[in-house]
Amino acid sequence: MAKTGTLYLIPNTLGGESIEDIIPQTVQEDSKSLRHFMVENLKSARRLLRKMDRQFPIDDSLFIEMNKRSTEQDTMKALRWLIEGKNVGVISDAGCACVADPGADIVSLAHSQKIAVMPLVGPSSILLSLMGSGFSGQKFSFHGYLPKDRKERIQTLKSYEFVARRKGYTQIFMDTPYRNMNVLEDLLNELADHTQLCIASNITLHNQRVRSMSVLDWRENAYDLSKSPCVFLIG
Amino acid sequence: MAKTGTLYLIPNTLGGESIEDIIPQTVQEDSKSLRHFMVENLKSARRLLRKMDRQFPIDDSLFIEMNKRSTEQDTMKALRWLIEGKNVGVISDAGCACVADPGADIVSLAHSQKIAVMPLVGPSSILLSLMGSGFSGQKFSFHGYLPKDRKERIQTLKSYEFVARRKGYTQIFMDTPYRNMNVLEDLLNELADHTQLCIASNITLHNQRVRSMSVLDWRENAYDLSKSPCVFLIG
Repeated sequence: MAKTGTLYLIPNTLGGESIEDIIPQTVQEDSKSLRHFMVENLKSARRLLRKMDRQFPIDDSLFIEMNKRSTEQDTMKALRWLIEGKNVGVISDAGCACVADPGADIVSLAHSQKIAVMPLVGPSSILLSLMGSGFSGQKFSFHGYLPKDRKERIQTLKSYEFVARRKGYTQIFMDTPYRNMNVLEDLLNELADHTQLCIASNITLHNQRVRSMSVLDWRENAYDLSKSPCVFLIG
Repeated sequence: MAKTGTLYLIPNTLGGESIEDIIPQTVQEDSKSLRHFMVENLKSARRLLRKMDRQFPIDDSLFIEMNKRSTEQDTMKALRWLIEGKNVGVISDAGCACVADPGADIVSLAHSQKIAVMPLVGPSSILLSLMGSGFSGQKFSFHGYLPKDRKERIQTLKSYEFVARRKGYTQIFMDTPYRNMNVLEDLLNELADHTQLCIASNITLHNQRVRSMSVLDWRENAYDLSKSPCVFLIG
């Protein structure tokens, strides 16, 4: 039986930053050696590969998209590449594949066939926010995106506050940028004065801000988050 | 008033791997520019700096240790450096400062004085394991180290299994290497056959292994983990 390929999980940038700031040299070398990719967004994956190597042979490479329109057959095609001995790279739209982003399906399939999986180091807005918050990194939960419905969102935020205070787990969550100001409003209106809140915006970008303070202090020092990707943390 | 310094959170290696594999170029440049450090372990911090620059002026640099013997005064000294305008680097023993490692105290103090905090990209065994597991990265909890007492450990593992199945949160935890085989034994004896278990050992090292399978399959395919740093995940 021929040797199977390896599934590489390639980090993407979180925005327009230089890859030298966020992607180690060897990760770039490994990524540039691949010609088979499973990607969340074709444009952003190609942009990343061109940033790593301006001469990257896009036209000689094969891409499968993983998004809402993808089918099981698409994932199976990537699996066949691996079984045939091709190395395959997974690239999400931003940051680390499989963390708050697609990619877990092909990884899970790879494991079912005993194919080697190689996660590569890169930027994760979740992890960088947690580091920068000053809150406990000994125990934490990431909840993904908040509910859209306001009543449900407020209930959810209050339950996070309760768990952070009661169990000491740092609570991490996010929302789409255009709802960030609604989230902030709810946080400042509904949480207790002394609850510690961190907001990390534009992580790794030139206008990055990581601020931790009490809800009381946030009420006096709020700023515009409406166009910034943000991670929220309750300590 | 003089400009305050910036607090840099510098990633360390997870073992003997090359820093080109895991630390971006700019992160190395930023780190090498510093002369004031707060470190978990002097030896490992110096080793990291020498890996980044064989000529790094260790003797012209100042180090404060953060460990069991550290006092509040040590942390205050680092804060004074920042207030005086010095940039300060935080380096833990391995991986990312503040995540399952010390560092959060000085970060929290820095925020209280409105000092800029700059988390830098590097390897996190927790995040890399989660990426490599194929389990949900949309929602997850990290629990730190397991209880030492066996009865308590078994109860804890069963509660993780329950939460993973019931709420869909990937459960992440670890233990010291010499207890890994006891943990594995408990996992294989106490969890349900079809529970999905991932074990990620020696992350980023040459002998890295990330394997996900059912508890039933693990019983047939267990291997020695007794000397390997491991992250365990229940999916």
